[in-house]
Amino acid sequence: MIIIMQPGATEEQVKNVIEHIEKHQLSAHTSIGVEQTVIGVVGENHDVSPSAFESLPNVQAVQRITEPYKLASRRFHPEDSCFLLDGFTIGSVEIPIIAGPCSVESRQQILELALAVKEAGANALRGGIYKPRQSPYSFQGIGEKGLEYLAEAKALTGLPIVVEVMAVSQLAAMVEFVDVLQIGTRNMQNFDLLRAVGETRIPVLLKRGMSATIEDLLMAAEYILAGGNYRVVLCERGIRTFEIATRNTTDINAVPVLKSLTHLPVILDPSHSTGHSKYVTAVAKAAVAAGADGIIVEVHQDPPHAISDGRQSLTPEAFAEMVIKVKAVAEAVDRHLVPSKILLPKEMNGVIHG
Amino acid sequence: MIIIMQPGATEEQVKNVIEHIEKHQLSAHTSIGVEQTVIGVVGENHDVSPSAFESLPNVQAVQRITEPYKLASRRFHPEDSCFLLDGFTIGSVEIPIIAGPCSVESRQQILELALAVKEAGANALRGGIYKPRQSPYSFQGIGEKGLEYLAEAKALTGLPIVVEVMAVSQLAAMVEFVDVLQIGTRNMQNFDLLRAVGETRIPVLLKRGMSATIEDLLMAAEYILAGGNYRVVLCERGIRTFEIATRNTTDINAVPVLKSLTHLPVILDPSHSTGHSKYVTAVAKAAVAAGADGIIVEVHQDPPHAISDGRQSLTPEAFAEMVIKVKAVAEAVDRHLVPSKILLPKEMNGVIHG
Amino acid sequence: MIIIMQPGATEEQVKNVIEHIEKHQLSAHTSIGVEQTVIGVVGENHDVSPSAFESLPNVQAVQRITEPYKLASRRFHPEDSCFLLDGFTIGSVEIPIIAGPCSVESRQQILELALAVKEAGANALRGGIYKPRQSPYSFQGIGEKGLEYLAEAKALTGLPIVVEVMAVSQLAAMVEFVDVLQIGTRNMQNFDLLRAVGETRIPVLLKRGMSATIEDLLMAAEYILAGGNYRVVLCERGIRTFEIATRNTTDINAVPVLKSLTHLPVILDPSHSTGHSKYVTAVAKAAVAAGADGIIVEVHQDPPHAISDGRQSLTPEAFAEMVIKVKAVAEAVDRHLVPSKILLPKEMNGVIHG
Amino acid sequence: MIIIMQPGATEEQVKNVIEHIEKHQLSAHTSIGVEQTVIGVVGENHDVSPSAFESLPNVQAVQRITEPYKLASRRFHPEDSCFLLDGFTIGSVEIPIIAGPCSVESRQQILELALAVKEAGANALRGGIYKPRQSPYSFQGIGEKGLEYLAEAKALTGLPIVVEVMAVSQLAAMVEFVDVLQIGTRNMQNFDLLRAVGETRIPVLLKRGMSATIEDLLMAAEYILAGGNYRVVLCERGIRTFEIATRNTTDINAVPVLKSLTHLPVILDPSHSTGHSKYVTAVAKAAVAAGADGIIVEVHQDPPHAISDGRQSLTPEAFAEMVIKVKAVAEAVDRHLVPSKILLPKEMNGVIHG
Repeated sequence: MIIIMQPGATEEQVKNVIEHIEKHQLSAHTSIGVEQTVIGVVGENHDVSPSAFESLPNVQAVQRITEPYKLASRRFHPEDSCFLLDGFTIGSVEIPIIAGPCSVESRQQILELALAVKEAGANALRGGIYKPRQSPYSFQGIGEKGLEYLAEAKALTGLPIVVEVMAVSQLAAMVEFVDVLQIGTRNMQNFDLLRAVGETRIPVLLKRGMSATIEDLLMAAEYILAGGNYRVVLCERGIRTFEIATRNTTDINAVPVLKSLTHLPVILDPSHSTGHSKYVTAVAKAAVAAGADGIIVEVHQDPPHAISDGRQSLTPEAFAEMVIKVKAVAEAVDRHLVPSKILLPKEMNGVIHG
Repeated sequence: MIIIMQPGATEEQVKNVIEHIEKHQLSAHTSIGVEQTVIGVVGENHDVSPSAFESLPNVQAVQRITEPYKLASRRFHPEDSCFLLDGFTIGSVEIPIIAGPCSVESRQQILELALAVKEAGANALRGGIYKPRQSPYSFQGIGEKGLEYLAEAKALTGLPIVVEVMAVSQLAAMVEFVDVLQIGTRNMQNFDLLRAVGETRIPVLLKRGMSATIEDLLMAAEYILAGGNYRVVLCERGIRTFEIATRNTTDINAVPVLKSLTHLPVILDPSHSTGHSKYVTAVAKAAVAAGADGIIVEVHQDPPHAISDGRQSLTPEAFAEMVIKVKAVAEAVDRHLVPSKILLPKEMNGVIHG
Repeated sequence: MIIIMQPGATEEQVKNVIEHIEKHQLSAHTSIGVEQTVIGVVGENHDVSPSAFESLPNVQAVQRITEPYKLASRRFHPEDSCFLLDGFTIGSVEIPIIAGPCSVESRQQILELALAVKEAGANALRGGIYKPRQSPYSFQGIGEKGLEYLAEAKALTGLPIVVEVMAVSQLAAMVEFVDVLQIGTRNMQNFDLLRAVGETRIPVLLKRGMSATIEDLLMAAEYILAGGNYRVVLCERGIRTFEIATRNTTDINAVPVLKSLTHLPVILDPSHSTGHSKYVTAVAKAAVAAGADGIIVEVHQDPPHAISDGRQSLTPEAFAEMVIKVKAVAEAVDRHLVPSKILLPKEMNGVIHG
Repeated sequence: MIIIMQPGATEEQVKNVIEHIEKHQLSAHTSIGVEQTVIGVVGENHDVSPSAFESLPNVQAVQRITEPYKLASRRFHPEDSCFLLDGFTIGSVEIPIIAGPCSVESRQQILELALAVKEAGANALRGGIYKPRQSPYSFQGIGEKGLEYLAEAKALTGLPIVVEVMAVSQLAAMVEFVDVLQIGTRNMQNFDLLRAVGETRIPVLLKRGMSATIEDLLMAAEYILAGGNYRVVLCERGIRTFEIATRNTTDINAVPVLKSLTHLPVILDPSHSTGHSKYVTAVAKAAVAAGADGIIVEVHQDPPHAISDGRQSLTPEAFAEMVIKVKAVAEAVDRHLVPSKILLPKEMNGVIHG
C-alpha cells in the first residue's frame, strides 16, 4: 500500500501514520516530496485493508499496489487451473458448452431438452429449480422434485448437471445430485452462501454480479477458494449500464482481463448478457474469440411458452447452429469444442414416455 | 400491458397473441394502425408478466402500463404508511435519526457510543454484528455476542436497535433482540432472506441494492409485504455509477420518486451514499430537504481506529453538529426531528465500567 | 505522481523510468519494497501526464497525487470565487435563481415569461435560441432573432440573460447581447468551443457532461480559465446511470465535492437532472440544502404546448411556489435568496402588446 | 406512438389528447380499458416527438413504436450499405483494418508508421492532427502541417487517410486531403459539426459517444445522412461504466444490435474500448466474430514515447500478429480481410530520408 499525505500534513501526522503501520506488524518507507509526503507500506498482507489508514488525520489517499485476492490471483498461481468434469475439462484447450432451459418445468420438458441439447453438442445441462424472480407473484421454480428430473436427464444423456443454489438451506439436497453449483448474479455477494459452497467440494460456477467490478468478482471467488473449494469457474453475464437496447451490456473486456488476473476458467453467458435470442450467437462467437473457456446458454423447445426467459432462449435448432458457428471460431483461435461422445441407440429407447 | 406487433405481422400472428392473452383469463383490445398493430391487454394482473408475450412470433415489444408491485404501490394505498417504533414514528411529520457504528466492536464501544449518539439526538441505534465484507480475510463481525451488547445499550439508553441480518440462519437469534431488521444492499435481491423477514412481524429497513432500480427496490419490498410484514422502510444508500470521487452516487431523485410511487417511508444513508465523512452532513440536509422521512448515519468515537468504514463515520461531535443542521432544514420543510426525551441522570450512573 | 513497478521489474527497468522522469526536468525518489518498487516523481507539473510513464516496460500503474487542474483548484485559491452579475452576485451568501423557457419560441412568449419569472422571484432569465436536439427533424431553435427578443425581455425586466452557445460561429452575435454564455452538457468537451469562450470576458455557465466525472468537469473549466476568463459557474445537471425512473440521476454529492475541490460557484439544474416537473421542487430544495450557490430551472407558461422540454417545465405558479420553498431552505442553511428589487408600475405598462 | 392515460383521466382529458394528435395531422385510435385508456397515434411521422404529448394533463407515458431515425434505419433500407473507399470496400464481406498513431507527431514518424502498418496489413491510415485532450496543458496536436505529412504518407503507401475533425473551422483544410472524416466520441452530439460534415461528400467515421445509447448514435448518424452524405460508418469505441479495470467497457452487444437496426457499416476500436494494448487483440477478434465490418486500431513504433495514448498502442510487430489472428477469425465467420495489394519496390525507395 502507498499512503499519500495531504500537502501541509505535519511531521507528527506522518509519524502517527507510521505508528499505525507498525502496529500492524508492517514497516514504513517514507518519501518526503516538495509538496507531499508519501509513505510506502512494506510487507503488505491480506488482513490489513486501506481503510485502516484512510481516515487518519491528513491522509489524502491510500492506494493498494497488490491485489486484495490471493488464491484467485495468477501472480501466485501462474498456470491456468483446469478442472475435470464429467466427460470434459474446463480451463484447457477444449471449450465446453453448457445448455438448457432457464427453469426446469416438467419431467418431460427436461428429458426432451436434455436429449436435444446433447444431440446438438452440449456438454452439460443447466436447469433452474429455484428461480430468483423479481416479483413474488411470478413462478418461483419447481423446487426439489426438479432434482430428480435432472438426475433422470443425466442418466439418460450422460450430461453433468449445473443448478443454481439460492440459499444455504437448499445445499443439502443439491450436493447429492448436482455436478456444478451455480451462484447467480444476485447472490454473488451473499457471503454466507459463498462460504457454504466453499465448504463443499463441488465445482462452482460463479456468476458476476450485475454491478460487480472484476475485482469484486475475484473477491467473491476468494471466499469460495478460502474454504478449500478450488474448482471455481467465473462467468461473465453482462453488467448493468445506461444502454437499454439490450437487457445487459456484455463486458467482453472482462474475458481477457480475467484471464490475465486469475488462473480460474472464465466462461460467458450470452443469453443473459444480451437478453435477446437473436443476439446470442454473435456474442457467443465473440466470447470464444476473446478467449473464453466455455459458453453457458439458455435453450428451450418452445421459447414463447417458456415459463421464464423465453425471449432470450434459443430453440434446439438455433442452438445447434450456434454450436457449429462457435466451433469454427474456436478452431480459428486454436482451440476446439469438446469431442462428442457417441450416443448409443439403446440409451434413447422409449425413455420419455416410458 | 400493451403488445406492439412488428410491422408486417400477419393476421394469424395477431390472432396467436390474442389466444395467448385469453388463455391467461385476460381480454384483448386490438388497434390496427397503418404500419403496426397494437393489442391492449385488459384485466392485467400481477401474475402475468410481459415475458409471457414477448417471444411470440412478430411481437416487437410489450409494455406494462401498471406497476408490477401492488402492496407497495401508492395507487392502492394513497395514504402514507406510518409505523410506531420505540419512542418515535417513521413516515409521519417527524424525522427520526438512526446512528451508530458500522460494526459493534466491543461492549464498551457500543455502550459509550449509544450514550453519545443519544445525547446528540439519535432516536435509534444501528450496529452491525455480521458484516458483509468484500474480503474473506477482513473482520466479519463480532457475531451473536454483539446482540447482548446491543441489548445492554438499549437498556441503558432506551434507543431501539437496528441490526443487519445477512442470512436466514441468523434470524432466530435476532428476532429476540432486534427492533428493526436491516437488509443490506448486497442482499436486496436475496429473495430467500426477503421471504424469511416477511414472515416475521419485525419492522424491516430495506436498503436499495447498489445497482437496483427504484422499481427493483419496490419489488424487493413487495416480497416482504407479500409475507404479511407491512412495516417496511426503504433506504436510499447510493448507487454505482462511473463517478469515482465518491464511494457511491446518492440518487437524491429517488426520494421524491419513491414518495410518489409508494406509501412506505423512505430514509437516506449519507454515510454509504458518499463514503466520506466530510460530505455526510451536506447530503443529510439534502435528503431531508428532498422529503426523506429519516436519516441513518454511521458514527464512531474514533473513526481512524474503527474496524470498518472509518472514513465515512462521523465523530459524536460532528454527528451532534449534523443533527443541529438537519433540524433547521427539517423545520424549513415543515417537519421536525423527534422531540427528545429527557435522559435521567441515574440512567447514566457508572454503567459502562460497572 | 507515483509510479508503481510490477513485481519482478529489473533494476534496469527502474533506471529507465528514472531517466524518463529526469528528461521531463523532474526528479525521482525511489522506494524499494519487498515485492515492488515505487518511484515518487518530485516537482510534478501540469504539462506531464501519467501517460508519459504508464507504457514504459514493467510499469504497473501510475497514480497522480495532485489534481490535473490548477486554476480551478481550491488548493491554489482557497477563497470562494464570487462574481458580480447584473443585480446579484454568485458564489456569495446569496442564492440567485435563473429561470425561463427551454426555448425562446416567440417575442410574446419570452416577454410574458420574463415578467412572470421576475415577479415570482427569478434573478436571471434563461432561454435557448439554438437547441441541441437529438433529432435533425426536431425544432432546432428560433435562431438569432431570439437574441433581440431576449434583449427586449431584459430591457423590460432588468433580468440579465443566460443563453446556450452551441458553436464558435454563434459567438460573435451572442457576445453583444448575452450576460452569461451557457455551455451545454453535450458540448462540455467541445474543446474548441471552450477555448473560444475562454477568450471572451463574458461569464460562463458550464454544464457538466452527462457522463463526465467531476474531474472531467473541472478540466473543462480549466480550459476556459486558462484563456483568461475567470468567471466560470459550474452546473450539475444530472448524470446518465442505469436508473430509468428519471431522465437523469441528480448527483447531489457533486455539490459538496465540487465546493471542496474548487473555488468556483456551483449551481444545480433540477429540471434536467430529474426530467419531470413534479420532482423539480424537491431537488431544488435538496440542492440548496447541500450547499449549491444557485438554481437554474425551466419555466413555461403552458408546458404541454412548449416546443421542447414541456414535461420538465414548471408553470409560473409552480415556480413561484418553488421559490418560496427554496427560500425557506436557504435560510435554514444560513443563506438567502437575492433580495428582490421593486418592479415599478410604469415598467410593466402595455409593453407586450404595445 | 402510444399514449397511456393515467387511471382516473377524465373523458375531457382524453379528448384533449386526441385534439392535440389531430392538430399534428395525425389520427387517434382510442382503447378504453378497465383501468386505463390507451390512445394509438396513427400516421406517426418523424417531426412529431413524444414530448408533444407527455405533459398534457393526466398522460402517464408516451411510447414510441417506430424508431426516431429513418435514413439510418434498416426498416426502410433492408440491404447493407457498402461504400467503396480507396482500395477496399466497407460494409461488404471484406473486413478492412484502419491503423496508425493516436497523434501525428512528425513527418518521419508518420511515414515510417504508414509503411509499417501497410506492410503488416492495414488498409487505411489513421492519425490525429488536432487532439481532444482533457487538459489544456497537454499536447493539442500538430495542426494543419500534419495534413501534409499524411498526404505524403498516402502518396508513399497508397493508404487512404482517416483524420478526426474537431471543429467546423478545420473542415475546409481537411476536405482537400482527407479520405475519411472522423467524428470523435466527445463530438458525437456536436450537432453543428454533424451538420457540417453532412454537407460534405466525404465518408464519415462516426464514433459512439462514451455515454451515448445505440439510439443516440443512430440519431447522430441521421444528422449526417439528412445532409445528403450517405457514407457514414459507425464505430463502437467503448462506453463509460462503473468498471475501472479497463478504460472503457467494450459494448460488444452493440455490434449485432446495430447490424440489426441499421444498414450502415459498423466497426470497432479495441484500442479505446479497452485502453490497454494487451487486451486489444482479444477484443479485435471478438469484434470480428460478433459481425463487425472493420477494425480501427492505434499503432505506434515506440508506444512508451508516444505523445498520447501510448498505453493502448500496439507496436507494428504486435499489430502484425493481431492482423494474422483477426484474419483467422474473419475466415471462421465466412468473411476475409482485404486482399493485400503488392507494394512495389520503387514505391519504397529512399522516401523517408529523401
